[in-house]
Amino acid sequence: MNRGPSTPKKPTLRDVAELAGVSPMTASRVVAGSPGVSPDLVKRVRSAVKKLGYARNEAARLMRPGQRSGLLGVIVTNIDNPYYAQVLLGIESAAQSSGRLIITGISHNDPALEAQLVRDLVARNIDGLIVVPASADAPHLAAVAARGVPLVLASRSIQQGGADTILVDDIGGASTAVADMLTEGRHPIAFVGGPDAIATAARRYEGYVLAHTRAGLVPDPEMVLRLPPDRDAVGAATRALLALPEPPKAFFTTNNRYTVAVLRVLLQAHLDTDDQPPLVGFDTFELADLLPYPLRLIDHDAHALGRLAAELAIRRIDGGEQTPPVTTTLPSTVALNGATSHRAVTS
Amino acid sequence: MNRGPSTPKKPTLRDVAELAGVSPMTASRVVAGSPGVSPDLVKRVRSAVKKLGYARNEAARLMRPGQRSGLLGVIVTNIDNPYYAQVLLGIESAAQSSGRLIITGISHNDPALEAQLVRDLVARNIDGLIVVPASADAPHLAAVAARGVPLVLASRSIQQGGADTILVDDIGGASTAVADMLTEGRHPIAFVGGPDAIATAARRYEGYVLAHTRAGLVPDPEMVLRLPPDRDAVGAATRALLALPEPPKAFFTTNNRYTVAVLRVLLQAHLDTDDQPPLVGFDTFELADLLPYPLRLIDHDAHALGRLAAELAIRRIDGGEQTPPVTTTLPSTVALNGATSHRAVTS
Repeated sequence: MNRGPSTPKKPTLRDVAELAGVSPMTASRVVAGSPGVSPDLVKRVRSAVKKLGYARNEAARLMRPGQRSGLLGVIVTNIDNPYYAQVLLGIESAAQSSGRLIITGISHNDPALEAQLVRDLVARNIDGLIVVPASADAPHLAAVAARGVPLVLASRSIQQGGADTILVDDIGGASTAVADMLTEGRHPIAFVGGPDAIATAARRYEGYVLAHTRAGLVPDPEMVLRLPPDRDAVGAATRALLALPEPPKAFFTTNNRYTVAVLRVLLQAHLDTDDQPPLVGFDTFELADLLPYPLRLIDHDAHALGRLAAELAIRRIDGGEQTPPVTTTLPSTVALNGATSHRAVTS
Repeated sequence: MNRGPSTPKKPTLRDVAELAGVSPMTASRVVAGSPGVSPDLVKRVRSAVKKLGYARNEAARLMRPGQRSGLLGVIVTNIDNPYYAQVLLGIESAAQSSGRLIITGISHNDPALEAQLVRDLVARNIDGLIVVPASADAPHLAAVAARGVPLVLASRSIQQGGADTILVDDIGGASTAVADMLTEGRHPIAFVGGPDAIATAARRYEGYVLAHTRAGLVPDPEMVLRLPPDRDAVGAATRALLALPEPPKAFFTTNNRYTVAVLRVLLQAHLDTDDQPPLVGFDTFELADLLPYPLRLIDHDAHALGRLAAELAIRRIDGGEQTPPVTTTLPSTVALNGATSHRAVTS
C-alpha cells in the first residue's frame, strides 16, 4: 500500500457522524454505548462505524476519571527459557478471560532495566502488574505496591515484601530430591546453580543444604558452583568437577538452563552406563524423556503459576480482595525423565 | 501491604504542585518538559515528583493530537513453540532500542481471535503492528494496513497482500532438503505438516512437490499427511506410515512441532540403526544435537526475523519509508543435528 499523501486517513468520529447524518455528539453517545439514542440513529451510526472501519480511541476513554486501562503489565526475566513462555501463556489466558490485554517487558535479569520497565508500565495506567523479579533486592517493586498498584510476584519473592507472591516449593522440592540421592549413598553431590541474588536459586540452595544437614553431612564447598546462567561457564565448571580425583556421585541443578548445560557435558563425557552420575534438576524441558541419560526433574506447573498470578492481580484490581498480601506456594513433584501431576496449596 | 481505606493513593499532579508550592499549571508544564519555567521552580517540582513517586499519566499525553503511543502491537500464534519466543525476543530487542513497549496478543492460531486482538490493539493507538498471521486469508489485516496503520507480517504472508512481509525461504529450503534425500535414493519421502491455510505449510509443501517434479517423480498421496499440530494425531499417523508394506524411506516435516512429534514415534519404534529413515524438518530446537537420531534441520534466524520485522515497522512509523510494501526473504540453511549461519536477502 502507498502511504504517501493520497493514503486514506484514519477515520474520525466526525467522519462517522457525517456519513451517518447525525451530530458528532450523537455519534459519540452511540460509540460510547450511552442510552437514550433512538434505535434508528444507533443503527445509522453503527453502519457508518462499520463502513469506515472506525476504531474508538481508547486513550480518550481512559481520560475519564476512574476508568481502568484494561492492561496488565507483565515483566519476565527472559522468554528464551521455555519455562517463562509457559508462565506468560498462563498469564495471558487469565488476562484474556477477563477481557484484558497484556503489555510485556523483558528485564533480561537486569534490576535497573526492570525498574525502568516498571516506571514505563505504571505511567501507562496499567490496572495491575505481574513480575518475575530479576533480583531479590527490589525496592522499586515494593514502592509500586505501596502506592496501591496491584502487584503480584511470580516464582520469586523480594526481600522488601509487601506484594502478593506465588512461589514454588523450592526448599521442599530441592531437599526431597537431594535427600533421595544421599539415601542411595550418592555423596558428594555437586550443586550447580544461580547466585544468591536470584530468590529461587537461594531457596533451592537452602534445600540442598537442608538435606545434607538432616543426613548429618556438610556439603563440600568444592562441590558448590554458583554461577551466572552462561552455558560455556557452566560447562567448563562441570568438566572441572568431573576431572577431580573424587568426582561428584550426582549433580543437582537449580533450573533447566543449568540442567541442560550440565547434561551436555555429561553426555559428551561418554561415561560408562554403570558410572553415570544421576542429574536432578528443577523444571522439566521438552525432549527430556528422549535423552539417553538418567535424569530426575523437579517439576511444577509453570502455566498454572502464571495463571494464578494473573487471577490474583485481577481479583485485587476488581476490588474483591482488600486483604493483606498473600504468599501461595505451588507444590513441586519429582519425575524420572518424565511427566508429573500438580496440586496447588495456599499458605 | 494493606490496601484498605488507609492505603496511600496514587499521587496526582495536584499533590506534586502542593508539595512544590507551585500552581498545578506550573507543575504540569515542568512534568511535560515545556520551556519557560524558572530553574528554581523546575527544581522544586522535580524534587516533589521524586519524593511522591509521581508518574505522569501517559493516557493524558496521548490525547494531544499527533502524539504517538510508543506502543508496538504484536500478535503471535503461540509462544509455547520456542520458535515464536525467539521471534518475540527479536521484536522486543528492536522495540527497546527505539524506546517502545510491546503489547502482546496470542491468537492461538484462531483467525477470529486474531481479528479481535487487532481491533483491541488498534483501539489502543498502537504506533504499529507486527503479526504472525493465523491464516493466509486475513481481510482484517489487509483492512488495517489500508487504513495506514504500519503493519508488518512475520514469517507468513496473507492472500490479500498490502503489507510489509518478512518471509523465510520456505520453498527453497524445502526443495533443497527434499532433493538431497531423493538424490540419495530415498523414495518415497513422507510429508508431515500443517494444512494449506497456514502460509508456511503451504509454501513448504510446494517445495516438497517441486523437488519431486524436478526429479521426474510424483509424490505418493498416501505419503502426504496434512494435519493440525496435534501431537497425538501426528503420532498416530506416523505410526500408520511405519506400518505400511512399503514404509517411507525418509520423513519431511514443516516445523519443529511436527518434527518432535514424528521423532518421538521414530525413537520409540526402536528401528535398527541401519534402517533409520532420516528426518528432515524446518526449524531447529534445543537439544536436537543430543538426540540419538539422524536429523537434518532447515534453520533460519528467528530472532533476526522478529528484529527485522520490528525495525521495518519502526521505520514506517518514523516516516522514513513512504514506499510501497516490501517482502524480505530470509535464507534458510540445512544442518545435521546442529548449528547454522544466516545471511539476509531482500527481494
